[in-house]
Amino acid sequence: MSDLNQAKDSLPFTQWAGAELKVDLSAIAENYRRLQKKAPSARCAAVVKADGYNLGMIPIAKRLKEVGCSDFFVAYLDEGLALRSILSDNDRIYILHGLFPGSESICANANLIPILNSLEQIDNWIRFCNQDQTRHAAGVQLDSGMSRFGIGPDEIELLCRIDWKSFDLALIMSHLACADIPNHPLNFKQLQQFRLMKQMLPPAPASLSASSGIFLGKDWHFDLIRPGAALYGINPTPQKPNPMQNVVTLLGKVIQIRKIKPDIAVGYGASFVSKKPMRLALVSVGYADGFLRSFGNKAFAKSQKYPEIPLPIIGRISMDSLCIDISGLSEKALHTSDFVELIGPNCPIDHIAATGGTIGYEMLTALGNRYQRIYY
Amino acid sequence: MSDLNQAKDSLPFTQWAGAELKVDLSAIAENYRRLQKKAPSARCAAVVKADGYNLGMIPIAKRLKEVGCSDFFVAYLDEGLALRSILSDNDRIYILHGLFPGSESICANANLIPILNSLEQIDNWIRFCNQDQTRHAAGVQLDSGMSRFGIGPDEIELLCRIDWKSFDLALIMSHLACADIPNHPLNFKQLQQFRLMKQMLPPAPASLSASSGIFLGKDWHFDLIRPGAALYGINPTPQKPNPMQNVVTLLGKVIQIRKIKPDIAVGYGASFVSKKPMRLALVSVGYADGFLRSFGNKAFAKSQKYPEIPLPIIGRISMDSLCIDISGLSEKALHTSDFVELIGPNCPIDHIAATGGTIGYEMLTALGNRYQRIYY
Repeated sequence: MSDLNQAKDSLPFTQWAGAELKVDLSAIAENYRRLQKKAPSARCAAVVKADGYNLGMIPIAKRLKEVGCSDFFVAYLDEGLALRSILSDNDRIYILHGLFPGSESICANANLIPILNSLEQIDNWIRFCNQDQTRHAAGVQLDSGMSRFGIGPDEIELLCRIDWKSFDLALIMSHLACADIPNHPLNFKQLQQFRLMKQMLPPAPASLSASSGIFLGKDWHFDLIRPGAALYGINPTPQKPNPMQNVVTLLGKVIQIRKIKPDIAVGYGASFVSKKPMRLALVSVGYADGFLRSFGNKAFAKSQKYPEIPLPIIGRISMDSLCIDISGLSEKALHTSDFVELIGPNCPIDHIAATGGTIGYEMLTALGNRYQRIYY
Repeated sequence: MSDLNQAKDSLPFTQWAGAELKVDLSAIAENYRRLQKKAPSARCAAVVKADGYNLGMIPIAKRLKEVGCSDFFVAYLDEGLALRSILSDNDRIYILHGLFPGSESICANANLIPILNSLEQIDNWIRFCNQDQTRHAAGVQLDSGMSRFGIGPDEIELLCRIDWKSFDLALIMSHLACADIPNHPLNFKQLQQFRLMKQMLPPAPASLSASSGIFLGKDWHFDLIRPGAALYGINPTPQKPNPMQNVVTLLGKVIQIRKIKPDIAVGYGASFVSKKPMRLALVSVGYADGFLRSFGNKAFAKSQKYPEIPLPIIGRISMDSLCIDISGLSEKALHTSDFVELIGPNCPIDHIAATGGTIGYEMLTALGNRYQRIYY
């Protein structure tokens, strides 16, 4: 069994799964419209990397195409190849990570647009285009102050030596580090830096803003906006009410209901001990399903019938289950096999994320494979 | 596009993926042997739920069968059905979550053994067996002090009313809440409670211990031990050196190397600002790959050539990338496309997990789908 390479097994989870993950594709389409409206002078792309933030790149891209989206961003070449098969050749697919050396021809053959992040990646692309005697399209990323992807301010003078005629410069982009904090000085500094740097390059469509950047105002919009999280219902303006529609609903099934007396330990490490008689429901979602351990003793669930009553998660999250305190509900209100909401309109993803010290983005990408997925 | 149910897309990640996940099946087999040796009077099962703690249930179960394992535990019916297809009918597959009402016949037809966790689940199973006129096998879980799955001490007298002759009682089990803390009083209390409760049931094979419980001593072994985490290289004795062999190696690829001056912000939220000139490597693994956000500014990577030099992760973890400080390496030591170790012999999983306030179990189950997976 040596060198057995294989893709991740994807087990088919049926109606007997312990949880339902509902993805509202109409809400994604509506969020796309709202974001496009927010930046009318720019084209609106969709970031569908990480399998559409784990919600399903393919069904999401299909739906967004129906409402006019024609620019899609993924992180990896492999993601781009999978996406290409369901789009038309006129739709643009950008590979944010650029290319590892040697993969240039695979990218060009599939009509994918790499975002070149370093002089090395630019050199490799030019060499490939010259060999192939074709001006293949590519974007260039500039680092305007995040020190992550892209060509930094220190390297900008080297860009003058690039033979820009060797390829089709399809996009000049950068990325904001603090766009979710509207008055952060870095937003203005990055905007200025991006404007300065892009003047050193030939004219081409420009893009600076992802979800939160769109809400910084017109100056940050340029030619193309690139929302990801906001499409999926995450609040791009954390200090204000969420302007996006809810997309994801995660419902866990009740396996078992029990009563406990006072002074009874619950869960691993006996991190919770009852102070009074309680009724508990064991729900079949755990950290293996992406409901992070950091939510133990912190987050809450809601019964869909009584959404005004929070049902606190008590004890540590187990790998395959978690425990909620249902003492606040009447005895007849919740039964085995009933669903409780863990993420959704009554348990806003940003709010739940904050209880565990993280962000909605990570809650989405952490979602596991053991759900019955329902798209609507 | 209404009611479009579908399994999670699994994208095929190739040699152009940003990371390799190596799973040492021989080490899993060796760990199985070590655990079996630790409890010679008991049979050794394998817990392969959550797709083998995300490492691949199918290749793991195949390998463990070769070294004599014949008892496998999963959480869900769907996991059991997928596993059944590669095992022989003599191999026992236990469904830890028991069954949601209505799924009894699917379970029995596939020769799977549900672990019945409540009187309701027992009643449903007996009703099904009577209708089917067959004494199908099932296990029963007792709650000996964790208030999670199983029949609690308060319900034990009701067990006397059960018609035990209606089905084949294949296992009596319980689960320890604090087994990783050897002297925790709950370990002794649960042992005593389990012994007491199981006397109320007809004689049947008994099982109390998962990975850590095995190391509490012979009293906790009973007839069947059920390691999961320890098989996969997680230390079952956190206060002592790890008696298990390393199984998982996660290698991230360097996308780009950059130099920065002092007073430069790195990553989202500008959570890291350089105090001196530095060299940084951008590595193509992020929280969407299960490398949790809580590791930002805390964990470290290692170059495989210079494993004695920790390469600190600086700034926040991004969705698809993270940044390491490679100033401690010489300029020629690391290049684009080189791999750095994030989990493995030089970055022990338990150690990395602790830097982010979690446990190795969650690091495994969080591992994403975007790796090139290599089994050996």
